[in-house]
Amino acid sequence: MAAPFSFISPVNCLPMEYEEDLRAWLTLLRAPGIGPATARALVGRAGSARAACADARRLRRECALSDEALAWIEAPDSATLEADLAWLAQPNRHLLRFTDPDFPPQLSEIPQPPAALFVAGDPALLLGARVAVVGARSGSAQGLANAREFARAFARAGLIVTSGLADGIDGAAHAGALEAGGATVAVIGTGADLVYPRKHRGLAARIAQHGAIVSEFPLGTTARAEHFPQRNRLIAGLALGTLVIESSLQSGSLITARLAGEMGREVFALPGSIHSPLSRGCHKLIREGARLTETAQEVTEALVPAARALGAQLRERLEPAAAEPARPATRADDPDYARLLAALGETPLGLDELAARTGLKPAELSSMLLLLELEGAVAPAVNGRWQRLFASSA
Amino acid sequence: MAAPFSFISPVNCLPMEYEEDLRAWLTLLRAPGIGPATARALVGRAGSARAACADARRLRRECALSDEALAWIEAPDSATLEADLAWLAQPNRHLLRFTDPDFPPQLSEIPQPPAALFVAGDPALLLGARVAVVGARSGSAQGLANAREFARAFARAGLIVTSGLADGIDGAAHAGALEAGGATVAVIGTGADLVYPRKHRGLAARIAQHGAIVSEFPLGTTARAEHFPQRNRLIAGLALGTLVIESSLQSGSLITARLAGEMGREVFALPGSIHSPLSRGCHKLIREGARLTETAQEVTEALVPAARALGAQLRERLEPAAAEPARPATRADDPDYARLLAALGETPLGLDELAARTGLKPAELSSMLLLLELEGAVAPAVNGRWQRLFASSA
Repeated sequence: MAAPFSFISPVNCLPMEYEEDLRAWLTLLRAPGIGPATARALVGRAGSARAACADARRLRRECALSDEALAWIEAPDSATLEADLAWLAQPNRHLLRFTDPDFPPQLSEIPQPPAALFVAGDPALLLGARVAVVGARSGSAQGLANAREFARAFARAGLIVTSGLADGIDGAAHAGALEAGGATVAVIGTGADLVYPRKHRGLAARIAQHGAIVSEFPLGTTARAEHFPQRNRLIAGLALGTLVIESSLQSGSLITARLAGEMGREVFALPGSIHSPLSRGCHKLIREGARLTETAQEVTEALVPAARALGAQLRERLEPAAAEPARPATRADDPDYARLLAALGETPLGLDELAARTGLKPAELSSMLLLLELEGAVAPAVNGRWQRLFASSA
Repeated sequence: MAAPFSFISPVNCLPMEYEEDLRAWLTLLRAPGIGPATARALVGRAGSARAACADARRLRRECALSDEALAWIEAPDSATLEADLAWLAQPNRHLLRFTDPDFPPQLSEIPQPPAALFVAGDPALLLGARVAVVGARSGSAQGLANAREFARAFARAGLIVTSGLADGIDGAAHAGALEAGGATVAVIGTGADLVYPRKHRGLAARIAQHGAIVSEFPLGTTARAEHFPQRNRLIAGLALGTLVIESSLQSGSLITARLAGEMGREVFALPGSIHSPLSRGCHKLIREGARLTETAQEVTEALVPAARALGAQLRERLEPAAAEPARPATRADDPDYARLLAALGETPLGLDELAARTGLKPAELSSMLLLLELEGAVAPAVNGRWQRLFASSA
């Protein structure tokens, strides 16, 4: 499959310029005491990361830079930056900056939006319709089975499952999505080059291959308790809705769900026995207004309006970029897209049927369908099905 | 304990007059095609049941009486009426008519209020603060244990548990309330002289002794499917709130809960596994606005405002009657009441503590406290506790 957003990816830029901008970004992201808000302010005021680094002394007061931050920006550690660049130079590694046209627009709506994301895997997946599936690290056997089964159903319906790669419910959700041939996005609280917990190394490798691992922390950042709530806001912020499978009253999943609610996103929770401490968190959420959820279908149906709104937002955001000269040949010239369009008739089809008809994987189909939707060639139907739109004679 | 409402009970009336009125009531209640609305209209217009029977021909058109109804009223079957009177003449048997001052006021607020209720047991229990505990006949072992445990907790908190004497959840709720030494009210869909299902005969006998069995159907009415929804409106109507323990989507408990909601009463439901068909009904109710409930305490706390409003309503309703010459000696003259008032200090006490201090049963205490509340001598405190009110000097 053609890389859907190749028109904005590094290979289309002048290599030298791109690398210089990347180096400037890495300098800012590693500067001591510079958080996402300051990084965004610096880049926004200077016009680019390179300009921000060059003008840092002038912007010092305006952007409240500390002496340490300024010292670092003016003389960063080259070895560190080279190591970062070497990681990014490997295949399937990306730095997604808030200034990029394919930076997920829904992340700009959240409180404390990130300035940039390290991605191992396919960054286009961050633009698709996503559902967060989260829960306790100490999930019960039934909870893990539920997480897996819901994630499978979401993947079959074309929704990208997002979670936190944690032990328990998170891991089961990622695994379920992959089992169903779907894409899954893991937002992690360490650097994108590290895996925590270590037992999830195999899972992380599969996610990087068939989905994406995302982190806003500099490479090499180890697991620290205070990073996880910060990570949770990205899980909630990337998703159209958040489903909590099992959660004690102490679980971080409640934070993710509360943040999702504050962002105006849908919150779903599975009920359970009144005698299980792992139901308490879910029951609290339901009392506070989360949707009591029994089936994956209820979630996918509830997310249809949000998915449509996201599609419209992306279309608006990407159309100017799409009109630039760097735009690749139209989808119709790509044999995969031609096959997909030929397979789609007027009757809505699910990803399974489309995969069978085209030989493409559901995860690939998911991204392709999103792009075709942006072009107005297809439209989502109910239950994760898709239909072709033919030019009307009117 | 003194019969709390003896001032309006038959023994204080002229026996002959009382029996004639009773006979007229039984005539109306057994008249073919006369439902609660017509019976209320006839008695209301004529001024009494005796006058209604005497004037039936005149009221015929106004009250839409059929030829069959008129024929019966003018010449009822004496043997049937004698049998009814013989049942009522036994100890602890009552006909509670909507014209009686101790007819439960909350039943007059419901759609299709009953005209009269046959009661085996203590009719004063219909005036106390009540919670309905209902659920599926095919309740699971855990559901039955939950019903029992919640009913026990309600009884300990001084709430009278109401249910339908059905197999499964209903039976467990009645049993739990009795186990905790509390009172329980069974509203049944057969005549008050019959028990359905038969396996609950022992339970029914205990309820008649320590609580009340209530039916609006004539004596001898056997179990008929169409009577149960009608019975359910009384379960909901008598209670301040209705708790559904377990319920399939087909269970009659959903009808009871829906009726409770329509009457503006609180509806509570226990969540459960998404894989159990017996959770579906409860989950549906929660989605529709019922309170997701994990503990009995949540229910008792939520019902405090409704219990206070009921107390105020009863006070208003009973005070004129209490001023009539037939009023018995004041509570202070009764040694049981004197003992109870002596036991109560300024610190609120629960029924268990009061039972230990006075040697009275919680069910007796419950009725006595209600009457003392009506007199302004005690007031309910939180968690089913009661405190004495002393005359203020202001």
